[in-house]
Parts: sequence; C-alpha cells; structure tokens
Amino acid sequence: MSTYGHLFRVTTYGESHCASVGAIIDGCPPGLTLSPEDIQVQLDRRRPGQSNLTTPRNEKDRVHLQSGLEHDVTLGTPIALLVKNEDQRPHDYSETDLYPRPSHADYTYLEKYGIKASSGGGRSSARETVSRVAAGAIAEKYLKTAFGVEVVAFVSSVGKISIPSSIPSPSADDDNDDAIEDALSEEFRKLLATVTREQVDQHQTRCPHPETAERMTKRIIRAKEASDSIGGIVTCVIRNVPSGLGEPCFDKFEATLAHAMLSIPATKAFEIGSGFRGTQVPGSKHNDAFVVREDGKLGTKTNWSGGVQGGITNGEDIYFRIGFKSPATISQAQATAQYDGTPGSLAARGRHDPCVVPRAVPIVEAMASLVVMDQLLLQNARRTAASLLPPITTLPPTMVMPGAKAVP
Amino acid sequence: MSTYGHLFRVTTYGESHCASVGAIIDGCPPGLTLSPEDIQVQLDRRRPGQSNLTTPRNEKDRVHLQSGLEHDVTLGTPIALLVKNEDQRPHDYSETDLYPRPSHADYTYLEKYGIKASSGGGRSSARETVSRVAAGAIAEKYLKTAFGVEVVAFVSSVGKISIPSSIPSPSADDDNDDAIEDALSEEFRKLLATVTREQVDQHQTRCPHPETAERMTKRIIRAKEASDSIGGIVTCVIRNVPSGLGEPCFDKFEATLAHAMLSIPATKAFEIGSGFRGTQVPGSKHNDAFVVREDGKLGTKTNWSGGVQGGITNGEDIYFRIGFKSPATISQAQATAQYDGTPGSLAARGRHDPCVVPRAVPIVEAMASLVVMDQLLLQNARRTAASLLPPITTLPPTMVMPGAKAVP
Amino acid sequence: MSTYGHLFRVTTYGESHCASVGAIIDGCPPGLTLSPEDIQVQLDRRRPGQSNLTTPRNEKDRVHLQSGLEHDVTLGTPIALLVKNEDQRPHDYSETDLYPRPSHADYTYLEKYGIKASSGGGRSSARETVSRVAAGAIAEKYLKTAFGVEVVAFVSSVGKISIPSSIPSPSADDDNDDAIEDALSEEFRKLLATVTREQVDQHQTRCPHPETAERMTKRIIRAKEASDSIGGIVTCVIRNVPSGLGEPCFDKFEATLAHAMLSIPATKAFEIGSGFRGTQVPGSKHNDAFVVREDGKLGTKTNWSGGVQGGITNGEDIYFRIGFKSPATISQAQATAQYDGTPGSLAARGRHDPCVVPRAVPIVEAMASLVVMDQLLLQNARRTAASLLPPITTLPPTMVMPGAKAVP
Amino acid sequence: MSTYGHLFRVTTYGESHCASVGAIIDGCPPGLTLSPEDIQVQLDRRRPGQSNLTTPRNEKDRVHLQSGLEHDVTLGTPIALLVKNEDQRPHDYSETDLYPRPSHADYTYLEKYGIKASSGGGRSSARETVSRVAAGAIAEKYLKTAFGVEVVAFVSSVGKISIPSSIPSPSADDDNDDAIEDALSEEFRKLLATVTREQVDQHQTRCPHPETAERMTKRIIRAKEASDSIGGIVTCVIRNVPSGLGEPCFDKFEATLAHAMLSIPATKAFEIGSGFRGTQVPGSKHNDAFVVREDGKLGTKTNWSGGVQGGITNGEDIYFRIGFKSPATISQAQATAQYDGTPGSLAARGRHDPCVVPRAVPIVEAMASLVVMDQLLLQNARRTAASLLPPITTLPPTMVMPGAKAVP
Repeated sequence: MSTYGHLFRVTTYGESHCASVGAIIDGCPPGLTLSPEDIQVQLDRRRPGQSNLTTPRNEKDRVHLQSGLEHDVTLGTPIALLVKNEDQRPHDYSETDLYPRPSHADYTYLEKYGIKASSGGGRSSARETVSRVAAGAIAEKYLKTAFGVEVVAFVSSVGKISIPSSIPSPSADDDNDDAIEDALSEEFRKLLATVTREQVDQHQTRCPHPETAERMTKRIIRAKEASDSIGGIVTCVIRNVPSGLGEPCFDKFEATLAHAMLSIPATKAFEIGSGFRGTQVPGSKHNDAFVVREDGKLGTKTNWSGGVQGGITNGEDIYFRIGFKSPATISQAQATAQYDGTPGSLAARGRHDPCVVPRAVPIVEAMASLVVMDQLLLQNARRTAASLLPPITTLPPTMVMPGAKAVP
Repeated sequence: MSTYGHLFRVTTYGESHCASVGAIIDGCPPGLTLSPEDIQVQLDRRRPGQSNLTTPRNEKDRVHLQSGLEHDVTLGTPIALLVKNEDQRPHDYSETDLYPRPSHADYTYLEKYGIKASSGGGRSSARETVSRVAAGAIAEKYLKTAFGVEVVAFVSSVGKISIPSSIPSPSADDDNDDAIEDALSEEFRKLLATVTREQVDQHQTRCPHPETAERMTKRIIRAKEASDSIGGIVTCVIRNVPSGLGEPCFDKFEATLAHAMLSIPATKAFEIGSGFRGTQVPGSKHNDAFVVREDGKLGTKTNWSGGVQGGITNGEDIYFRIGFKSPATISQAQATAQYDGTPGSLAARGRHDPCVVPRAVPIVEAMASLVVMDQLLLQNARRTAASLLPPITTLPPTMVMPGAKAVP
Repeated sequence: MSTYGHLFRVTTYGESHCASVGAIIDGCPPGLTLSPEDIQVQLDRRRPGQSNLTTPRNEKDRVHLQSGLEHDVTLGTPIALLVKNEDQRPHDYSETDLYPRPSHADYTYLEKYGIKASSGGGRSSARETVSRVAAGAIAEKYLKTAFGVEVVAFVSSVGKISIPSSIPSPSADDDNDDAIEDALSEEFRKLLATVTREQVDQHQTRCPHPETAERMTKRIIRAKEASDSIGGIVTCVIRNVPSGLGEPCFDKFEATLAHAMLSIPATKAFEIGSGFRGTQVPGSKHNDAFVVREDGKLGTKTNWSGGVQGGITNGEDIYFRIGFKSPATISQAQATAQYDGTPGSLAARGRHDPCVVPRAVPIVEAMASLVVMDQLLLQNARRTAASLLPPITTLPPTMVMPGAKAVP
Repeated sequence: MSTYGHLFRVTTYGESHCASVGAIIDGCPPGLTLSPEDIQVQLDRRRPGQSNLTTPRNEKDRVHLQSGLEHDVTLGTPIALLVKNEDQRPHDYSETDLYPRPSHADYTYLEKYGIKASSGGGRSSARETVSRVAAGAIAEKYLKTAFGVEVVAFVSSVGKISIPSSIPSPSADDDNDDAIEDALSEEFRKLLATVTREQVDQHQTRCPHPETAERMTKRIIRAKEASDSIGGIVTCVIRNVPSGLGEPCFDKFEATLAHAMLSIPATKAFEIGSGFRGTQVPGSKHNDAFVVREDGKLGTKTNWSGGVQGGITNGEDIYFRIGFKSPATISQAQATAQYDGTPGSLAARGRHDPCVVPRAVPIVEAMASLVVMDQLLLQNARRTAASLLPPITTLPPTMVMPGAKAVP
C-alpha cells in the first residue's frame, strides 16, 4: 500500500521517470498556518547535490501545493502536493538492462508485478522519498506549533566510524553488568537532549560531532575513490512528545516507529532506547525509576526505555537508531547473472552516492513526524470522548490512584 | 488498535484478570484442515512453568474454538477462540499499588486512559500474547500446508552469552571491510538453513547450540538468585516464502515484520539480514550477486539482504533478530516514587520470570506467520487480477526482460 | 470483512450452529459505566419468541462479558462479549440439502468459499445480528451518557400497510409540486420528534401508531396462515447528534449510515430525509431555510435534509427508512432446482418468522449507534487537534464569517 | 476520509478554486493497457456545458496522468492523475457570503472545521466528482478487459416524470400481492438487460426512453424558467459481474454499493433489486427460483434480488436506483438567516444547473466500477489462497454438495 497512517493519512505516488512525484495528505487539522517554504526547507535538505560527498545531480525539487489551503492556512481538506521530475522520459534500453542489479529491486519487482518500470525498481527508488519528506514537514509544522515538538536526526555512524558512546549495542561477553552506562556516555546523552538541526547541518556529513564528522568524510571519500559505497547509522531524538501516545497491543508506539523507519529504502535495523545493548543489562540497572520532575509531574531518572513504556509514550525524550546498508549501486564491476541466468559482469553507469545517510536525515525526521502525528490524532479521539463522561466515583483506589491524573 | 493485518485480520482482547483472553481471526482461507491441537502445541510452548528457569505458575491455557470451522475444516468465516483466565477476580489493593512500577506500563496506561485495570498495565501484560500465539498457529498451518513454509525461532543470546558468530552487529572501528564474513560464520549460516523446532526444544533455554545453552542457563540462574532479571535476543528464520511478497513504499516486507516484532512486549530492537553490521560493509562486499539455483530459478549467492530486496521477498530465507530487554518485574527493592511523587522503595511480590526469551520463541514465530500470511493474501489479490488480463505484446524489452517471468 | 468502524471498531463472529456468537468492541472510551443489563435489554428485544407473531423458538441469549471492564466501568481496552448457541451441533443432512434455498445465501456462499456451513448461509444468518445488537448497545450507552443522544426505530410499514404519511416516496406523475408536504404530515413529523422505545414496545408489531399496528398484525397473520411471509419498512430517528459529524467525500454521514443499514440481512432499500420523494420537489420548496433556534444557534425551519447537509450533520434530527424484503424461508413448496440442476420442489422444514421487521427494530438502532459513535470519535480527533492551534487572525471574512463559531 | 476501497484504493483531493483536482489510484493490477482517452471519455460525459439543459460553463477538464504507467501499460504502482481548475483564485467576498446557503454545506463545513474555503462547501462541491469519474474509468477498463463487465447508468426519473414501470417502490395499500410484476414491466426488464451507453447518450437528458426523455426536457426547462431546480433518479445496471463478490456481514455487496452511491453529492435514497416495493410482495412471489442457465450453471428465473443474495453476487445482473434531490442552488430569492442569525433574503448569483441527474450518470457508473473492482480484488485474495490447498475429502455432503463447484 502507498498510504501511511490512520487519521493523518499520507498517500504517495511516483517513480523516477514519470511526470512527477507527490502525495495527498488527508486529515491535517484545519487552521494550521502553512507555507510552501515550510516544506521546501526539508526538501532542500533531502536533495542530492548538496556537497561533494553526494551525487552531483542537482534536482530542483520545488514543491507545488494543489489543494487544502487558502491564504496559507489549512482548510482541513486533503492537501495535495507534487514535485516535477526533471527527466520524464522512460529510460532507454542498454546492455545493462539484461541484468537484475544485485541487491536492487529489479528482480523482486518483476517477480511481484510481472512487469517493471524501464528505470528498474520503480517505487523502491530514493526518488519516492520526496513525497515523504514533504508530508512529514506538514506534520512537523503542526506538532511544533501545537506542542513545541522537536524532531532532530543526525548521522551517528558511517561504516565503523561512530560518535563516541553512541552505540548501545551488545559488547563482548563478560560479567560486567554496567554495559549500559558505558554505552551511553553522559556526553552523548547531553547531545541527545540539546542537538539542533543547525548544529547537524554545520557539517556536510550531518554528524554534529566535529572530529567524528571529519573521519566520516574521509571514509566516504575512500569509498568513492574505490568506486564503492558505505553504509551508516542515523540517530533521531523527538522531544516534547505528549504522554499517552501509542496503542496497546499491535500498534505500540515503538512498533509503528519501527514500521515507519524500516519502510525507508536501504534500512536494515532499528533500535529504540537501550536497544540491543539493553538485552545485556539486568533489570535492576535497566529499569527507569520514577522521580518528580521540575514541572511537578512524574518523570524517570534514567531513560533506557527511550520515552516509551508498555508501548505508550511517557513524556520523556524518544530516541532511536536506524541502520542503512551500503548503497547497492556501485561503479565497479560485479560478477552476477543475467535475467536468463547467463553469468556475466555488471558495472553501474553514471555517478552515484557512495553514502546516503547524510541525505537520509530529513527522511527519518519526516517519518518520525508522521508517526507522532497519527498517534496523536488517535489519542485525541479517545481523550476527548472520555473527557465528556461524568467523573467516576465508584472505583477502588487501585484503578484511579491518589495523586494520579483523573480522566484528562 | 487491537487488530493486526489487512486481509488475514487478527483482533485480540483480554487482560490478566478478566474472564478470558482470545481473538477473532477474520480472513482465513476456507478449506483448511485445522484442529485445536494445531493451536494447542504452540500455546503449550508459550505457557509459563515449563521449566525451573521460568515462573512456576502453571496456566492451563486450553484453547476453545468458537466458530469458523465444522468437522475440523475452516469455512472462510471468522474463527473465534478463547482461553480462560484461571484467576478472574480483579486484583486486590495493596501498598505496592501506590507505586507505578518502574519500566512497566502502570504509569503510561493511566496517562493514556485516565484509568487502569487493577492489575496494572492491562493489555501490555504478557498474558495478551496468548491470543497472538493461537492466531499465528492458524496462519502457520495454512502456510505450511500450501507452501511448505517453515518458521523457526530460537534464543541466540541471553545477556552477553551468544551463539558464536550469531551477531551481525557493529564491531570496533577499524579498516577491515570483511566484518560481515566474520560475523555470520559458515556454521551459523548452516544453523539458519537447517534448524528445527525439535532441536530448539531440546534445551529449556530454546538455544539450539548446546554449549551456549548451558552457559545461558547459568546466566539465568545467576539473575534469579540475585532477585534480578536478564534480557536476550531471539533469532528467527522463515524458509520457503514465495517471492513477490511485500508492498512497495510504506508496507515493505521488512517494515511490517519490524512492526509485528516490536509489538511484542519488552522488545527494543530489530534487524534483518546483515542488520546493523551491514552498515559497515562496503557495497561491493554486501551486494548479493545473482546465480542460477538448482531449480533453474535465479537466486542469490550470498543472502545479506535477509530474503528481502526493495521491500519485496526474493525467495531466499528470511532471517532476523529481536532484542528483548530484561524483565522489569524484579523481587529486589528499587528506589522510586509513588504516583503522588512521594519517594520510597518498591519490591515486586510473588515469583517472576528472570528471563522471558525462551517463552518468547513461539510468540516470535506467531507474529512472523501473521506477517507472511497477510502479505501473501495481498499479493494473491494482485497476482490473480493480473493473470486475467491478455498478454502484453507492446512493451520494450527493458520492461519485460527476456528470460524474466511473464505476468504470472 | 467482519469489522465495522474506524475508531469504534466492532468485529463479530459466529454462525448458527457453532459454540457461540460474539464480538470484540475495540475503541470504547474509558470511564464509561456499563453493566451487562445495558446490553441485555436490547438483546431481549431482538430475541425471537417474544410474541405469537414471531418464531416460537426461545433463544436465551444471555450476554457474557469477557474483558475490558472492571467494576462495571470500561477500561478503554477491547470489550469482548459472547452469547452461547443453544444448538451447537452441525446441522444434520436431509433431502432439502440437495437444494440451494431460493433467495437465500446457500448458493452464493458456496460460490464464494467453495464450502459452506452445514446450516447453509453461514454468516448471513439472522443469528449474526446478536453481536451487532450487543455492540450497538455499548455505543448507545456512551452516546446517551455524553450527549443525551436518543435512537428510536419503529415499524412504519408491513407489506402495503403503513403509518399514514410516513412514506416520502415518489407518487404519481402530476404537476403538483407540493408532494413533500403531503408526504410527511405534521402528525408524522411530531411522531419523529417525540416517539420513545416505550411507545414502540407497547405493540408487538413495534408500530407506535395503534390503528396501523392492528392492521399490521392482521397482515402478518394472513401471511402466516398462508405459509408465506411479508416484508416491511423500519423508520429510525436519531436525536441530539452533535453537528459536524461525517467525513467529506467518501464517508459522508448518510453514506456510512446507508452502508450500515444495508449490511443488515434482508435489507433492499434506504432513504434519508425526503428520500426518493425529495427528487420530485423543486429546490425552492425542498431547501431548508436557516432560522435561529431557541438555544441561539442556527437551525433549519424544515428538515427535508434529514439532519445532514453536504454529508455532515447539522444538529437537526436524523431520520431515515430501511426496506426489508419478505423473508425467503417459507413453509409452502416452491418450484426450483437442485445444486446439480435437477428441477424439483422445496418446502422449508420447521417454523419460521412470517415477518421480521419487529425484531429488526433493535438491530437498526444498534447499527445507527455504531455509525454515530464512530463518526463522533473521528471528529473528536480533528476537533481537539484544531483547538490546540493558536487563533487564526489573517483570514478574510469569507472564510471565518462574523457570527460563525471560531475553531471549536 | 478521502479514500475509497481496501485494495483498489482511490484517494482524491481538490476544491473548486484550488490549483487542481485529482486522485491517486493505488492497487491497479499491472499489465493493463490504459490510455488517457479511456479516462477522458467519461470526464467529457460528466463535464458541464454539454447541452442547453445544463450550466453553460465549459470546463475543459483534461486529465493529466502523472505516474504508474509506461507506454500506456499500468505498472502496478500508484496512478496519479490531475485535472487543472480553470479558476484558481480564492472566491471574492460578497454580501451573499453573510449567508450560509440553505441545504448547502457552508454551515456544516464551518461547524466541522471552524473554517471553510472561500467558495463555500469545499469538498462537497460537484467539482470533487471529477476525480471519481477518472478513477472509476480505470477500474471499468480493467473489469471490461478481464471479465467483459458492462456498467450502464441512465436517468429514469426527473421530478415526477419516469420511464414507465421503472419504479419498484411502494404503491397504495391494497390486497393485491402482485405489485412487483406490475412494477417492473417486461419492457423495462428488457431495457435493463440490453441498454448501452450509446443509447443513453442519444438524448441530452440521458434517458434511453425517447418519449419520457422529451417530457423530462420540458420539466427541466420549466424549472429553469422558474429560476428553480428539480431532482431525479438514476438507474444503473452492472452486467457480467462474477459470482462470489461481497463480504459477509458488514461489507455485503449491496452495503458497499449503497455507501458508494450515497457518497455522491445530493443523493438521498438507494434501492437494489425490488427495493422498497419488494417489502410489499410475499416471499412466495419474491423468491428467485433457481434454474439451469444456457451455460449450464445455476441462475435464477426472476431477479428481484438484484444480483445479490446474502450480500454476495450470484452472477445475475445487478441493478439499483439512486435518488438525487433537487439542486440547492437556485436563482430565486429565499428567505433565510445569516450566520449571525439576522433574517434576510438570499438569491444565488450566476447561472446554475436546474437538474444534475444527466451529468450524474457517469459518476454513478464510476462509483459502481470502484465497488465491483475492490470487491473483486478482495475475493481474488481468498479464492487464490483456497485454491492452493489440497482437496477436502473428509466433509459430509451437506457442506460440499454434489454438483456444486469445488473449491475454485
């Protein structure tokens, strides 16, 4: 399906060589001030050709709003938007088309549809993410306006180069149960709490840790010079998310977040909070004890849960990591087979991104915004309905605790 | 929402102390031979009290089928099933109820609903997974009957104890690009290709690697003796899945798989194929070259993609890992705050599972089966529709390649 | 699909001869006081055997709540309920099984599934409506508690016997444009505005117009004595529905209402407000002029729209009519063909309802409640989201009119 | 929601004065030959200004395909299309904007959203139906190509002028049980079986009965000259629909059909088969006896069911009627109140359609095609899944009858 969300619904379309890519956003609250520039700024961050580390193609990618607004205010009706494709002709045939590209979607699209776009993997193209970024920017504008929500993603790893202590993942086998404190240093936790998009954009790798950013650049250049590619990890933090979001059972907050992130092309892994490393830490150290926050509300002393407990947000920062594999398109020759089984050798034509994670940053932010927005609307529906009922006076204190918030 | 799936739809209900837990499975194909025993066998694997490593409570958990079958054959209509709760009385109040349990869902349920079940986190209880296991067993029965699909999960890590070479995750920073070959040893790849449930169940830890299983047992006993808990990792492989499953864009196969897995209580992390470690390996080594398989169809030489390319299955084995945090319920006292903010100390009453991953194995298998089943029905809808159209004769060879399958 | 609704989601199961029929209601607001008796009262109205006009079978139909409540208060989690079937054995084979029953679902179920329940039409059985009535009673309890919504259905026609002036349907061809005023008399409009369930239940036909009720009884007895059956029309009014419900475009309020009503077995027709007769009245007479109501809000002078304009409720009473065909099951012999084409004669065994519309009354009320409830939750989601935005000050008066309500 | 369908999913956007109206069609089978002309032909039939009976505005309404095709063949990916609005400026303010137009959506949109488009009822505008017609044309192309499905709608009534015997609706109260045979004359049944779009388009009223068409024209002109409007009825027949379509319980075929039809602006009533009049006919006369058809398959002798039994299609022609109210926009002055309650008088500016039913014909055909297409894909999913199971040999003959089709 090409639709994301239950109440804030984003439906996208478009391949690499058709007339345009775009989306219909259905369910945006009415009365939101929204200009094309709110969207364009994130499209520009996604666009190729922003630095010498990425592909030199320069897509203009101007957003054209079609409906759902008047005088830069949303009407509550569907917002349609599109971005024209520069090259709208079907791809010309060449000898390389005899081969399904390894680790691409050429083969699987053909298996699925019995036909494929001339350009290959069709909707699996990175071009499709234009629509997500545009839709996410609208959700983000609402969340920022109504709740002050902040969504900031950044590159935390390229290949084996990582921001120090950014990886809460399993370490070597030993009897030291303190793994988690080692893994998320005080410095990194501070970064999560304060990092801004301005800081992220100060370096073309979108890594806000300057020394690491320098090393990442060298690693990417090494891949480029070898006609090869390299993957990486994007870390994202969402701040000021209201508590109570996420649906019990199948649509837990982290489940929908994982779904959204793994739907981005080239992703292979997701972890929230302590992630894989959290599996190594005993409950006594991993549990997040409750404390009273400055605003008088309950908060947690640590946040290994990553802002989600029992699948529902608790008001703490939500942070998570997404692994992007190395790009499949490389210029060096690869031994592989043709569609008909004939063995041969394939080398990609043209120039290609040796590393996509810097450009993935706004895509991750967009998908994160869509997840929060949809879950917020779902919770609004219930919260408002409950608030219209008379107060409950007959329940034992185990069910509505003294000091706990009443039906909101 | 308490419903999973688009066409094979599972809706579940039930908390810890209500009359029963259960599910309605809507969309099961008609004509499937299905007996209660097909379901009970997996419920028994999920049940607590199977060994001295898990909680000594013994829930009987007999499945009662309500509808959708006659003479052990499915009718195509909704299958309802339920499992009675042994203890159906609301939880009695005690002093511990003054505290939201750390890293539990007591607090977030109250934030979400303004009310909570007397037993605490309501639907976040592990009791809810009974319904999933039952529903998954039905999906699995179909998949096995129609396609010979095999779903096998097992425990690959407990704390820092892991089956050798089972972790395709980031290693230390260095210039060695061969990380991936190190990570997934030939031995482990063979295990993925051949492991059976019988092998998995030979050890109470559900780890099919005997030496590792012994070490895991000791680790769990250590946690138990310390009134503490420990997490772990479940690895799952799905064999014989047809190619072509998975929807482009938002419902890629791995995205729905991640969604399903992260909806299991206590999960924090997911990776498919090469996962996080795949981010460290250059494209030239990570790409899965095409080769002709024994059956004459195209396959891939390696399988770092984990059976999915561009979000669509390619016919290779699908394998993935899920991280489960250490259980939050521990008997030792924890410093934390009451609902009203009063600081104090909380220790769980009763006896608790120090490690849940062995019992998580059938739950992972169930959710995996639901994902494949739903994606299969979605693809059936399209495949059949396309097959009823006349052959296309006007397309250039770039779109329907020589040697590629025609519209199925 | 066996699920109704987007946010107040009802999933049902069960055939005539399985263990039970039942439903899971997902999305009920937390904090609603709800007892089994709230549900039972409507189940008893649906039950056969209430009078000598309906079938003498006496199904006990006690509702058993399984989950989602404690101490008679909803938790916000799924509410499961079931009603046991008295006769749980598969139907015994007999010679009549060689025939697909005319205008029944035997044939179409077999065409759809390739298999059918031994009892015949499976889920098309009236038995399935038990679950709807139970679920609808829960929705109704919420709507009544939070908004004072009143849902009252009654029998307005049996065969050609109708409450005077109750039929806003096309009359003979002439030049008199005043058809609509003729059709809905002042007396009938008053009935719509005031009728109660107590009044409806005073007569076994559930027709609140005594003289008409008497004539209906005779008509039903005539059908019974002829081993035949007769259809009828149910009229329903919903009062105190908030304005603003209904989704533009595909999910207009009346569209979802029609969907819900035509999903009831044996229905063939639906009209809202002026209905078919409204097609005959010029716009100048059909338009509902605006006036100021007693509460100071705008209302309409007439209500030919039936409480819905542009697909969205306007706060006026919603009224509509549903046509039920004559029951297909009759005791007299019918000439028809067997499954294999052999011509023959079929007469139904046992005793059957000659007219189902009196029992359809609580089913219509249930479905009406489900429609309002689901649309209300959808609107809550948007309304709350909009209310959290800062006031709009930049719009021209054409978009937020003086005197019009601001963003709610 | 602005999305129709589960598997053939149509999402639309656009108001009267925005940049464009359009749709994304997700789920179209791959390999369908489709040209813009296939769509344009129906858009032209919907377009205003086709005759002196409709509004003289001439919208060009050229469709622009954006994605999902190459070389006029569908790829299986989303098809986006748009039609530019001629007048893209927000509506200018005038004194008439002080009034909510009677029986329009101005008031209800403001109640729903707290804001409205300057042009008034936003998405309730007839302009929105452009997208439906375009999407329906794609569905129809598939259905015609794969199954020879024919969808033909026509105007059967304007005001009180009707094609003879076209109205199967309740007549006066009497003891004659033969109402149904009177109502649907042999001539009208023949019309349903054979009518073509060419015949329908031979008259500007789109009534294929010449004498009636003449009388309709006069009635419309009378309304026009009186600065008034008049409603009407559209009858539609769908031929060659496969049996087995429609989902038991909530998504019965006729329920989804009613939903689709009542979502068209200005509709107030729906009936299928014998409709309201069927409520007056005893079961013994209303039941459709089975007979062997020429192709050897079972069919029904009569077809009062309208091609649907138990909510599932039986292979007979599907026919139904939709009532459209008289247009709310009229040039004569109407006494009504302003938004702030001030009483006054409102007359519409410009020129308006006195009768919309001729232009509603392609809209009805489009929605009918969408219903069949979506239900077909749903059934494909199940049918294919069932066909992959081994044959059932253990069931009693009551469940898989001799002579009945086996699992397809």
